[in-house]
Amino acid sequence: MRSFLLLLVILLARPGFSQPTADTRNLLPVPTTVRWGTATLKPKTALRPLFQGPPDSLTAAAVTRTLARLGLNVPARNQSAASLPLQINYGKVGRAELFDEERYSLRVTPSGITIDAPTSLGVLRALATLEQLPQAAGRNVLLPEVDIQDQPRFAWRGLLMDAARHFMPVSVIKRNLDAMAAVKLNVLHWHLSDDQGFRVESKTLPRLHEVSGQYYTQDEVREVLRYAAARGIRVLPEFDVPGHTIAWQAAYPILASGDTLYKTVYQSWRLANVAFDPTKETTYQLLDTLFGEMTALFPDPYFHIGGDENDGRQWRGNPRIMAFAKAKKMLKSDGRTLDKHALQTYFNRRVLTILTKYHKQMVGWDEILGPGLPKSAAIQSWRGKKGLYDAAKAGNPTILSNGYYLDLNLSAANAYGTDPLPADNPLTPAQQKLILGGEAAMWSEFADSVIVDSRIWPRAAAVAERLWSARDVNNTADMYRRLAAVSRQLEGLGLQHRNAPEQLLRQLAGPTDVGTLRTLAQVLEPVKEYKRHFQGFTYTPSTPLNRLVDAAPAESDVARDFNCMVDSLRIYTNSDSYGPIFLVADSRRTALAMRQQLQTWQANHSKLIPRLGSSPTLTEYAPLSAALSAAAALGLERLALLEKQQQPDTEWQASALKQLDALNKPAGQTELAVLPAIRRLVELR
Amino acid sequence: MRSFLLLLVILLARPGFSQPTADTRNLLPVPTTVRWGTATLKPKTALRPLFQGPPDSLTAAAVTRTLARLGLNVPARNQSAASLPLQINYGKVGRAELFDEERYSLRVTPSGITIDAPTSLGVLRALATLEQLPQAAGRNVLLPEVDIQDQPRFAWRGLLMDAARHFMPVSVIKRNLDAMAAVKLNVLHWHLSDDQGFRVESKTLPRLHEVSGQYYTQDEVREVLRYAAARGIRVLPEFDVPGHTIAWQAAYPILASGDTLYKTVYQSWRLANVAFDPTKETTYQLLDTLFGEMTALFPDPYFHIGGDENDGRQWRGNPRIMAFAKAKKMLKSDGRTLDKHALQTYFNRRVLTILTKYHKQMVGWDEILGPGLPKSAAIQSWRGKKGLYDAAKAGNPTILSNGYYLDLNLSAANAYGTDPLPADNPLTPAQQKLILGGEAAMWSEFADSVIVDSRIWPRAAAVAERLWSARDVNNTADMYRRLAAVSRQLEGLGLQHRNAPEQLLRQLAGPTDVGTLRTLAQVLEPVKEYKRHFQGFTYTPSTPLNRLVDAAPAESDVARDFNCMVDSLRIYTNSDSYGPIFLVADSRRTALAMRQQLQTWQANHSKLIPRLGSSPTLTEYAPLSAALSAAAALGLERLALLEKQQQPDTEWQASALKQLDALNKPAGQTELAVLPAIRRLVELR
Repeated sequence: MRSFLLLLVILLARPGFSQPTADTRNLLPVPTTVRWGTATLKPKTALRPLFQGPPDSLTAAAVTRTLARLGLNVPARNQSAASLPLQINYGKVGRAELFDEERYSLRVTPSGITIDAPTSLGVLRALATLEQLPQAAGRNVLLPEVDIQDQPRFAWRGLLMDAARHFMPVSVIKRNLDAMAAVKLNVLHWHLSDDQGFRVESKTLPRLHEVSGQYYTQDEVREVLRYAAARGIRVLPEFDVPGHTIAWQAAYPILASGDTLYKTVYQSWRLANVAFDPTKETTYQLLDTLFGEMTALFPDPYFHIGGDENDGRQWRGNPRIMAFAKAKKMLKSDGRTLDKHALQTYFNRRVLTILTKYHKQMVGWDEILGPGLPKSAAIQSWRGKKGLYDAAKAGNPTILSNGYYLDLNLSAANAYGTDPLPADNPLTPAQQKLILGGEAAMWSEFADSVIVDSRIWPRAAAVAERLWSARDVNNTADMYRRLAAVSRQLEGLGLQHRNAPEQLLRQLAGPTDVGTLRTLAQVLEPVKEYKRHFQGFTYTPSTPLNRLVDAAPAESDVARDFNCMVDSLRIYTNSDSYGPIFLVADSRRTALAMRQQLQTWQANHSKLIPRLGSSPTLTEYAPLSAALSAAAALGLERLALLEKQQQPDTEWQASALKQLDALNKPAGQTELAVLPAIRRLVELR
Repeated sequence: MRSFLLLLVILLARPGFSQPTADTRNLLPVPTTVRWGTATLKPKTALRPLFQGPPDSLTAAAVTRTLARLGLNVPARNQSAASLPLQINYGKVGRAELFDEERYSLRVTPSGITIDAPTSLGVLRALATLEQLPQAAGRNVLLPEVDIQDQPRFAWRGLLMDAARHFMPVSVIKRNLDAMAAVKLNVLHWHLSDDQGFRVESKTLPRLHEVSGQYYTQDEVREVLRYAAARGIRVLPEFDVPGHTIAWQAAYPILASGDTLYKTVYQSWRLANVAFDPTKETTYQLLDTLFGEMTALFPDPYFHIGGDENDGRQWRGNPRIMAFAKAKKMLKSDGRTLDKHALQTYFNRRVLTILTKYHKQMVGWDEILGPGLPKSAAIQSWRGKKGLYDAAKAGNPTILSNGYYLDLNLSAANAYGTDPLPADNPLTPAQQKLILGGEAAMWSEFADSVIVDSRIWPRAAAVAERLWSARDVNNTADMYRRLAAVSRQLEGLGLQHRNAPEQLLRQLAGPTDVGTLRTLAQVLEPVKEYKRHFQGFTYTPSTPLNRLVDAAPAESDVARDFNCMVDSLRIYTNSDSYGPIFLVADSRRTALAMRQQLQTWQANHSKLIPRLGSSPTLTEYAPLSAALSAAAALGLERLALLEKQQQPDTEWQASALKQLDALNKPAGQTELAVLPAIRRLVELR
């Protein structure tokens, strides 16, 4: 009995078994309230859309799109009276850039579907939910009876796409807008200029796009804007100033602070720390011209001016700028050193004046926060939550991106656990209202247009849920289950997050079977954070991203699944650690699955050796392939003991753990994602 | 010694070991003459293109494209003197629709590349060859030293794409044009109208495209024409008349012969046998209007009018048409029965008059051949080689498609073995000149825009080689090896022939591991020829093509590889069939690989059962999954005997073969492609 109690305690203590799971089905983000019924709606042919609200072609098109995706949009000729109604009621045509309401209710009954929303934006969100409802039933679509009331927790739910570091063609942006709409993200933050390129056609300052080669024509920009608007998504353009501007300076050297004149856009990823000369009137004349043009092109009320990562070295190095700073009293208390922040605030105020003239609200990264910044400027916090809370305390509207940087290759769970406003936040209710939301950010140094989808999805959907759903929706295991469903859904929408890595693997496998290479790639992850810059190989914007690291998932599903299996092993044991142990019955099946998985990994290396040897691109991954095999062998030894109901010898265990540590070495800018789970298996007592 | 001789005889008799393989590397189609050197060209940075010939932007663009694909098109800023030359010499700008020469020479030496060709078409073909030369060497490209002289065997090498049955968006056509160019196909035969749709915008008769819903605007057609011309590819439009015209009749009922008036385009695949009324002048007035418009849109000198599959039943059933036939003496000798062929020839002559007015040469399917057909009309033979030779004997130019129908899901080897002019052909040299070439044909009843690439490629490349390379280039095993390389090359060009089926598999696998479903799908093939229409399920144009049959390859690589393994087993045996047998040494390795493969198949079914059971779409494939497992078990039994050096018991063998026959039952419109190979393994004595 004592043992039984102990077992219970062990069960309850294991993650994934502690929380009762709400019935969320495949809905992501989880709606505010959901009441499932027991009946189903079985549309025989098409659903018949009926509208009550001001006529709006975008809403009608969205409904057609949803019905087509559900397979319920059979050609109109036979829309007989027999088909069931999809009743859509909305009060007014909503516009995302006016922050109109997104609230909706969605009711599915056996006799039809009803959507009610104050604005057409709510209808779009309801349709996104509807698209996640179908249950497969052979060739027919079944919709479960349900009553959903839903509204977002935060009004600003964004995804940053960086078209500056690697250019992203319009088709890439569009399919990502489709994915955003599917998970109710509503802001595309379009990073359009940086050291490595200026990506929008400028009719007033054409050298800006000409020096960059690849750019969006203004017609293409308008095409994206239309596409986004049709999905209730704002487009926030970012033109990063005064730093991150080598591309601008290559086009118009008059902007430069420093002596180093760049003749081309930047061909490196190293932080350059260049900045505009903030003392010259020509700088502001040029910005006025350009921002006049760009604020007219982009309808969003916000306009992002970057403002990040200027350490002021170019300003300090220029005597004229130093003289200006001295005259304007922008020196530190020592009377000699530049107060970089004061000078940048001066710059920001000048830019703010321009933007105000064009009726835009300024947004900048958290570096721009500080004394003297007007309360109308919005702050995007990338360096930590401190910036977010400092901004709110200073009275500035603010959004969170720290914790949501997809390019760091951290887990979806990591982003999911980052709440802009946790229960223990230090803000007053008035300050909390200034936290508008957040944005997932996909900086593209290591993502070109081919693989970018796989670096964004499905992880960005975890951020989408964090920003839409209630604070207490935080069951990570259930999130991962739904994330897998969303991932399949996005494939149906044309996202390339699975196709592209698989295709890359096939290219790398060449004439050999792709299966063995896939087995390895599936348990590799790119090294985390910014380590990829420092792994013995220097990347530039023209380095092809076509190696195994680029096909490796940012977060390995296979490794996570294996980890869950280790977690779910339930062992009956005496408190006396040398006593007998038993696998609880359903853990025997898990152990069998683990055995098969470990055997596959163990056997994989010898099959892969010929290809690793013959392909120079793959050779550098041989140590990881060997390590996978060796680690799996250790896992198999531990598993055999478990199955034989034996505790491992302490000496064996210590030696095995030491071997596993020795295997834990990145190669080819990747690391073996399954090592921690195997380590935990070996450690089991 | 006697045994040894017997062994030799067995070795020599096995397919795949009889022919010495020419050094073809990855070149497909194989050039006329190739002399490989031993040196390599190692371009450090970009190649520097140098042109000698009349300036031509298309040729320059093609060179840029090739260099980009080779990774040798580094931004122009640093084209230092150090980079090696790509010297391109051509006499004149060639045009595909003028049948200009495609001959070229391509020389690669360590100091650069030289292309010589009489026309720029030859340059395009040389670039296609150049793109197949690179040898991987880590991040660098290596090109082998080589001297190639090349020219096509046939001038007309086509691919028919059917945009009428399932609409194929412009992007689909474009990527297939890229693939065609890669294997030197030079005619896109664009099947633009059929019972199920009329796919080109007509400004003179707009109801034609309006009733069809999905169609190409004339701007889109021009975009395709430009894209094709830039790749040296002609575009041959087909407007199929007088049969296959329900879409036309739905738009303009005045065209109809029959009483049945169609109000919409045809919603079935059943052969309708409708035809225009050939007796009314309005028919020819309408055709004159439309063909006037379309001949101006398409620059090719040929214009395809179809002419196939009209059995005349509508004509026979119309008293007015019968009276017309009687008056024109178009009755058979009995004086009562319609001579359908005479009436259709009358129709053809009227159409020919229209096309001649618009300076086009008529092409039609082999049904139009017969007495009274002018020699200027070209014949496309789909029903057999007889049509091809009859046409040539009658003095008509002709092309072959029989044997090249990709939609029948036959093997690449099957198409490859079909020579329009084998050595034993019955034609005189003058008649042989009338055999212009051939066309692979991809009718799209069972291929939508998503999966069509996988039904065309890589098999169409086998047809491409048959039509370009010399008659004696016919080593099937070597063709398959190069076909696999082309398949990878095409993926790099954006073809979706591997992505699309894999994505469909993932959708079908749902939340379960796609691996087990893939193992099954890889050894399934759709039922052959037109059997899919008759497998207990009636398809219509709106049936989604998203089941396992659609993800199954037209020709299973895995099954073929397994078959090759069976073929390559080399057994040392006494002529006394009850005596001892031995696997020759390197066959032991093959046997081991076969064992692993058979074990995977055997174990797959139990892993797949849960998914087969839970997904209504997959349930129908359960018998095939079980059959794969059972067949693999029999194969394993036979293999065990081989490894134990035992001959199988005759009774066991008879029983095993009987069981295999019983397993050979199609399901879900697919068949188990690996059964014949396992059968041959079991039969081995």
